Amino acid sequence: MPIDLNNFINSYGLKSKMQDFQDLDHIDGVSISTICANLYSKPRDDLVMFYFRDGANYASVYTQSKIISENIKWNLSIKSKKIKSLIVNTRNANAFTGSEGYEALKDIAGELSIQLSKKQNEDEDYPKKILNNEILFGCTGTIGEKYPREKIKKNIPELIKKIKYTQNKLIWLKAALGIMTTDLKPKLAMEECKIGNEKIKIYGIAKGSGMIFPNMATTLGYIFTDADLSNNVLKKLLKKNIDTTFNAITCDGDTSTNDMVSIFSTGKVKNSIIKNINDKKIKSFDQALHSVLLNLSKRIVADGEGANKFITIKVIKSKNDKDAKKIAFSIANSNLVKTAIAGEDPNWGRVIMAIGKSGININLDKLSINFGNIKIIEKGKIFKDYNESEVANYMKDKAIDITINLNAGVKNFTAYTMDLTKNYIEINADYRS
Amino acid sequence: MPIDLNNFINSYGLKSKMQDFQDLDHIDGVSISTICANLYSKPRDDLVMFYFRDGANYASVYTQSKIISENIKWNLSIKSKKIKSLIVNTRNANAFTGSEGYEALKDIAGELSIQLSKKQNEDEDYPKKILNNEILFGCTGTIGEKYPREKIKKNIPELIKKIKYTQNKLIWLKAALGIMTTDLKPKLAMEECKIGNEKIKIYGIAKGSGMIFPNMATTLGYIFTDADLSNNVLKKLLKKNIDTTFNAITCDGDTSTNDMVSIFSTGKVKNSIIKNINDKKIKSFDQALHSVLLNLSKRIVADGEGANKFITIKVIKSKNDKDAKKIAFSIANSNLVKTAIAGEDPNWGRVIMAIGKSGININLDKLSINFGNIKIIEKGKIFKDYNESEVANYMKDKAIDITINLNAGVKNFTAYTMDLTKNYIEINADYRS
Repeated sequence: MPIDLNNFINSYGLKSKMQDFQDLDHIDGVSISTICANLYSKPRDDLVMFYFRDGANYASVYTQSKIISENIKWNLSIKSKKIKSLIVNTRNANAFTGSEGYEALKDIAGELSIQLSKKQNEDEDYPKKILNNEILFGCTGTIGEKYPREKIKKNIPELIKKIKYTQNKLIWLKAALGIMTTDLKPKLAMEECKIGNEKIKIYGIAKGSGMIFPNMATTLGYIFTDADLSNNVLKKLLKKNIDTTFNAITCDGDTSTNDMVSIFSTGKVKNSIIKNINDKKIKSFDQALHSVLLNLSKRIVADGEGANKFITIKVIKSKNDKDAKKIAFSIANSNLVKTAIAGEDPNWGRVIMAIGKSGININLDKLSINFGNIKIIEKGKIFKDYNESEVANYMKDKAIDITINLNAGVKNFTAYTMDLTKNYIEINADYRS
Repeated sequence: MPIDLNNFINSYGLKSKMQDFQDLDHIDGVSISTICANLYSKPRDDLVMFYFRDGANYASVYTQSKIISENIKWNLSIKSKKIKSLIVNTRNANAFTGSEGYEALKDIAGELSIQLSKKQNEDEDYPKKILNNEILFGCTGTIGEKYPREKIKKNIPELIKKIKYTQNKLIWLKAALGIMTTDLKPKLAMEECKIGNEKIKIYGIAKGSGMIFPNMATTLGYIFTDADLSNNVLKKLLKKNIDTTFNAITCDGDTSTNDMVSIFSTGKVKNSIIKNINDKKIKSFDQALHSVLLNLSKRIVADGEGANKFITIKVIKSKNDKDAKKIAFSIANSNLVKTAIAGEDPNWGRVIMAIGKSGININLDKLSINFGNIKIIEKGKIFKDYNESEVANYMKDKAIDITINLNAGVKNFTAYTMDLTKNYIEINADYRS
């Protein structure tokens, strides 16, 4: 009997709709287990462990905030070339918890490495000792609260007991659910591609849904592949693709202390060796990775706190990337633009305001603006057939596209955001209760 | 019988409370008239004229937006050393209206200068012809809508007929009411000071209440004094004082195309000549001007769209002004900080987040944070006697003070903002209806 995923998600108390992850199955070399460590007042899975029995190559990008959480500090200190485990908790960010927060991670990593080494000894023909230095942490939740070291530590044996060497869509879904905070929907994405003749899988999970603004990685995102790629190639591919995906979204203009996107490759598929990312053989993987990252990014925006509409801001024909990005985010982060869209008001004057406040010099006589396919401004003037009621009608759509044509060059940047609703206020005014 | 100002304001359909302008009377050389030009669907005064019968020296600061309204362009083109009239309309920003919007101002200025010249001829012993070049415009309202040239033009005769040469508090109040858009309360402030032995008055009016973020002057503010000061001295005094007042406030992080703060001095008090602003004789005026500007700025924040709480962010002991300002505004513009305060949640972790995302390098071990007088962080650690319920209790106050001590230098910056409430969304989702 097929699993009814909708019912499964509903059983988590979530008002979630199905998403396209019916085909998720196993990525060789990845194990997942999840558990309720009672980090929330209501029981739910809040601790997720990824275990790479033969290790995984990896690359990460982290928050650019000047104040970073203790787990990001930990991850930055990792020198090992291979990772054996990633452990993610919600409810507590382990940020501004000082040396106590850091020591807690050391303690947990110590326990985890002992227990995992024991499991290797039992299960493997050629067991390897797992080191603290091969463990990464993801933390998300409230900043400044004491890190629940004991609650996490005491659940490690049970987490390990739950490890299975073959994964199915259910466990991927549980992992995506387990890393959620205020998210309403789990976020998963998958692609299949090729490196040379070898078929490769790329699966990803992510979480939002507040403090979302791209000053690097923004939020948590974890990508898994069975490809065999070096840390160096993974790092370059991740950096290349993050700018137009996770770094192109904003929900509220706020950047977390804990942002982290990582990619893990288990190397179980013996594809040809890739030395640099311009190699033609990596093109299909590169595109598939971009697609997974973009898919997850869009899901984060669509499920942004209180979001009712999905907004795409395209700035095209810019002199350079920097200007395009600055204008796109000036619009995407404007509360006035976002409330107008929430109110389905075709108040394009606020878009003009946001372009102006971006600080970028533009030639107004060349500026054109479209809402969807409807021309609003053409070469600096209100379009001759402009008809407000037509635009008002367009504003009722769930997905609003705004295109700013600067007619000044060949560079483009697209930002993704959501409307600003009363619901956002409600969620954030009593986040911790 | 004294005028009941509360009733008067209520008669405007406003839920306003009295403010401290009972003592406003006449500033010699200033005339004010207001009228309903039917710019709104409901009748209210929406056109305000200030007339300086003998001219006024003046200085202005304007928006730093890269897209400026037609009236700001007009004002920037004015070469005259003295101003004869300032005319302010609401409901329409005259922004992104192109040459048609500019021509409308020329047309209105032409009509106004003819009519005012006629009045000078009738009323003055030594009449002077008034020129287009002696007229300033203030516009505020929706961007991109056709400027109501005819409605404004045809009301000029009536505006001029209403001119009286002696002002009282009622007409100041009408002026402050007449320039309002979404403001709930009129904003007035007054100070008296001395230049040498001469008593000087400084009166000011201003309006908010959305698109408030300091990239220069922010919103409309008009200051009037009977002092005799040169344009050069006025300009320096205005620039000096604007940074810590109008440029220290933010409601929603959005900057208007129309921001404008001007000061007019009629020179009716024959004070000693001031050549530079370091002259000791100007100190009392300087302080009084700062007080009027700060008073108006705070009123704008307190009446910010949907505001329920007044928030003061003090960044102290910074290495330099720039860092202090950047951190203060990173906090003051954070939706997450502002919704937490709306929800009376002592979630100081979001303040940490906002400091981090400011991009300023700080020494965390030196960072101290107070909410009001309550210590939260001391030298990088949660204060030993920290008691969340005490802070939760403080959050119920109407005025929330947050002090960030960087312990890194001697520079300070204070920003003023308000909480972000559902009411903000409500106001802005259907602003134009």
